[in-house]
Amino acid sequence: MTDPEPAGWTRKDLIGIQPLSRREIEMILDTAPHFVGVSARPSGIKKVPLLQGRLVVNWFHEPSTRTRTSFELAAKRLSADTLSIAANTSSSVKGETLHDTLANIEAMHTDIIVIRHSCSGAPHMLAAAHASHIVNAGDGRHAHPTQALLDCFTIREQIRKRRGDPNATLDGVKITMVGDVEHSRVARSDIRAWTKLGAEVTLCGPATLMPVEVEQMGVRVCYDLREAIREADVIYTLRIQLERQSSALFPSIREYIRLFRVDNESLRAAPPGAIVMHPGPINRDIELATEVADDLSRSVILEQVSNGVAIRMAVMHLLVNGGGPGTAR
Amino acid sequence: MTDPEPAGWTRKDLIGIQPLSRREIEMILDTAPHFVGVSARPSGIKKVPLLQGRLVVNWFHEPSTRTRTSFELAAKRLSADTLSIAANTSSSVKGETLHDTLANIEAMHTDIIVIRHSCSGAPHMLAAAHASHIVNAGDGRHAHPTQALLDCFTIREQIRKRRGDPNATLDGVKITMVGDVEHSRVARSDIRAWTKLGAEVTLCGPATLMPVEVEQMGVRVCYDLREAIREADVIYTLRIQLERQSSALFPSIREYIRLFRVDNESLRAAPPGAIVMHPGPINRDIELATEVADDLSRSVILEQVSNGVAIRMAVMHLLVNGGGPGTAR
Amino acid sequence: MTDPEPAGWTRKDLIGIQPLSRREIEMILDTAPHFVGVSARPSGIKKVPLLQGRLVVNWFHEPSTRTRTSFELAAKRLSADTLSIAANTSSSVKGETLHDTLANIEAMHTDIIVIRHSCSGAPHMLAAAHASHIVNAGDGRHAHPTQALLDCFTIREQIRKRRGDPNATLDGVKITMVGDVEHSRVARSDIRAWTKLGAEVTLCGPATLMPVEVEQMGVRVCYDLREAIREADVIYTLRIQLERQSSALFPSIREYIRLFRVDNESLRAAPPGAIVMHPGPINRDIELATEVADDLSRSVILEQVSNGVAIRMAVMHLLVNGGGPGTAR
Repeated sequence: MTDPEPAGWTRKDLIGIQPLSRREIEMILDTAPHFVGVSARPSGIKKVPLLQGRLVVNWFHEPSTRTRTSFELAAKRLSADTLSIAANTSSSVKGETLHDTLANIEAMHTDIIVIRHSCSGAPHMLAAAHASHIVNAGDGRHAHPTQALLDCFTIREQIRKRRGDPNATLDGVKITMVGDVEHSRVARSDIRAWTKLGAEVTLCGPATLMPVEVEQMGVRVCYDLREAIREADVIYTLRIQLERQSSALFPSIREYIRLFRVDNESLRAAPPGAIVMHPGPINRDIELATEVADDLSRSVILEQVSNGVAIRMAVMHLLVNGGGPGTAR
Repeated sequence: MTDPEPAGWTRKDLIGIQPLSRREIEMILDTAPHFVGVSARPSGIKKVPLLQGRLVVNWFHEPSTRTRTSFELAAKRLSADTLSIAANTSSSVKGETLHDTLANIEAMHTDIIVIRHSCSGAPHMLAAAHASHIVNAGDGRHAHPTQALLDCFTIREQIRKRRGDPNATLDGVKITMVGDVEHSRVARSDIRAWTKLGAEVTLCGPATLMPVEVEQMGVRVCYDLREAIREADVIYTLRIQLERQSSALFPSIREYIRLFRVDNESLRAAPPGAIVMHPGPINRDIELATEVADDLSRSVILEQVSNGVAIRMAVMHLLVNGGGPGTAR
Repeated sequence: MTDPEPAGWTRKDLIGIQPLSRREIEMILDTAPHFVGVSARPSGIKKVPLLQGRLVVNWFHEPSTRTRTSFELAAKRLSADTLSIAANTSSSVKGETLHDTLANIEAMHTDIIVIRHSCSGAPHMLAAAHASHIVNAGDGRHAHPTQALLDCFTIREQIRKRRGDPNATLDGVKITMVGDVEHSRVARSDIRAWTKLGAEVTLCGPATLMPVEVEQMGVRVCYDLREAIREADVIYTLRIQLERQSSALFPSIREYIRLFRVDNESLRAAPPGAIVMHPGPINRDIELATEVADDLSRSVILEQVSNGVAIRMAVMHLLVNGGGPGTAR
């Protein structure tokens, strides 16, 4: 297994899906299979030296287990050193600005900064002003690009496998996203990526949870779940944020379940081969029934998690080694 | 120094002492000396590549420095990568079940999950349902098997050294455990291991702190400290949990000290060569006098800590490489 | 690039600047350039195997991002394993003494313990009683020796570069420190190091924030900022601790800014080539104007951060390998 040649990658950062071309997205997806293989090596030695001696800093301003863990693991499997800077123990309590903290981190010769922040736009602002490679691990309601990339990769792999076509793309693939689209950065990034790759996207959920800008998104909206999934190749369920129930915009949980839960009953309306996805963590039996989540003939939720490590390895490899072997920036 | 051959080990997990045979316990004890040597290498290069490229996840739901640190260090000395998932920063705040969180961790291709949890039985439940190697680092009042193994190893090494017999076992060794046996998972695991290895065990402490199931344990109970330690080869003191004082079952600290403290005065009743142990952290001068704890002619408390790293290296090596070199599972 | 030979270093610990001879300080400064080179390697492989297989424990009892991160990175770039023990998750909650906790850490065969503690003297007390190499990362108001060393190194490098003299020392270099000297451990350690190396030190700030022992320090005190910096080669600004404002000793912020802020206006009184330093994090536009902090023709603040990693690598290398290759202690 020779290491992938990152020829042609030129971006310094990964901030969102929007600035990426279809070709760039596919370059990342095409790099990932190599790293899927690394994590599944039968020898157990799940590492490659592509970022040997490099430093990846996880700088998370919101709590996160799965995303932080996935990035940390991706860095370690590339043989990078990792450093975690938790926001609560950081200089932020001393009133330092994000720019100053980042300048200090960079002065220690870091290579990649993975940042999650509650303010939309924080990673973009930092990337524009600093020389490090910045990877957005989620900013406010704005974007979560590595989630979108791992979702695209998972869909493409499934489509290729199910159709027996190793060159299948997302062109014409019918994806229905169900739930609270308005408050989800995962949704925003996924929709951008799917439409760029040629998929036909349908959004479904309570009208109060659909984004106002939905017309400009190039998607179809459908308020009836069974209608929305009738031709779906992929049913993507979003996490319901239970803490929003107090909001006037949110229906009762009982009402939500009755109308929008993906379960064996509602899935009768979908094609038999439709796959079910979820970004995690699942509220079991609220937006997604346990019977579906754990049915490995259609649920690919854990495959999303596995692919997440590979996609993040691909992204970090391309950012650092993108100009070709031996050229760091 | 060639690496130990883990021939014959077949278990996937280490959940407790109860399911282990005497032969399995001794297999672990026999593997540990190799790793004692690794940690004490004069070159300072205290590592072996037995878990190179593997991933060990520390997943602690109760605070712990010494046990978590010991496992993390053991993993690093085997050249594994390590990842810590603190319960407070994990998805548990989002209401995810233990099963879902573990399934997500596993999907990232982990090898060993070290878990501490306040619920007795949680590690067992997880081990039964998941493919990862699970190591119980303490669950409720139930078990703390690696502590018991390191205690057995420390006793055996001491007996061998003091008797000048490199093949001595715990058969017939007289061990007196003093303190709050009822609330201690260390006590439960130690008693199981010691009796399996043929030691003669005496429990001593306030009657209200003796477990009700003591008759089925194959041990002697004695409420008089001097009587209990009269023939002891080993005096094992337990930590008094001071926060239990409010409980009606607990005597006053003054009363406890008068009747059960191990100090130079009470030790006059014991054989001169008796060794003193404690699982740490010590309440100095409450259950154990400083004069005894720091007397290296009989206190082996820090040796327990050193041996803890070696025992955990042995356990992790056997779990992963048990089927012979090159076979992970 | 061959690794530096640590011939002649004999100390077990780095507790403060006071016990060090001028020769010892210069030995550290002379070792650092090698490690500056390691962190800036064009290949990106920013590591040397000088502490391969060793264990460095970060034991911080006060929150700190920059110092803890710098030490952790320094250890990793020397190829050591690292372990972080946060005080809040440690056995300290169980009432264990510092000595007991350290004895337990040491029993796991650690090599270097980096400690920060709010009590002045804690690292000294521990170093005297334990065999590990102890590095003081800041204790109370007492000392912060690695900060002083990195400051000395930064000044020496700047002086050498600006004078074009590769052998220049701090002899006769004029350094003015501005701010709350009384409450600063950085100030105490810096003043000790600068005077030992032959620099001429002036302190400037509100009289209420000057240390009472200032006469014994071998420094000049000047309460007028423009006068104090008139001949300065180096202007070292200290962080104002805003939480002290409530104290009767502290002037109002407005008053402080008017009299003591280092900005383009006040810098007109200084020589044009004077460099500006700050230990971070900066209160922008309070003790130091943004226009100065970000003016890379005179601000060397980020160079201080970069040099911090190299100095800490040098210190750890000398402590462990000081007796020559292969001799750990």
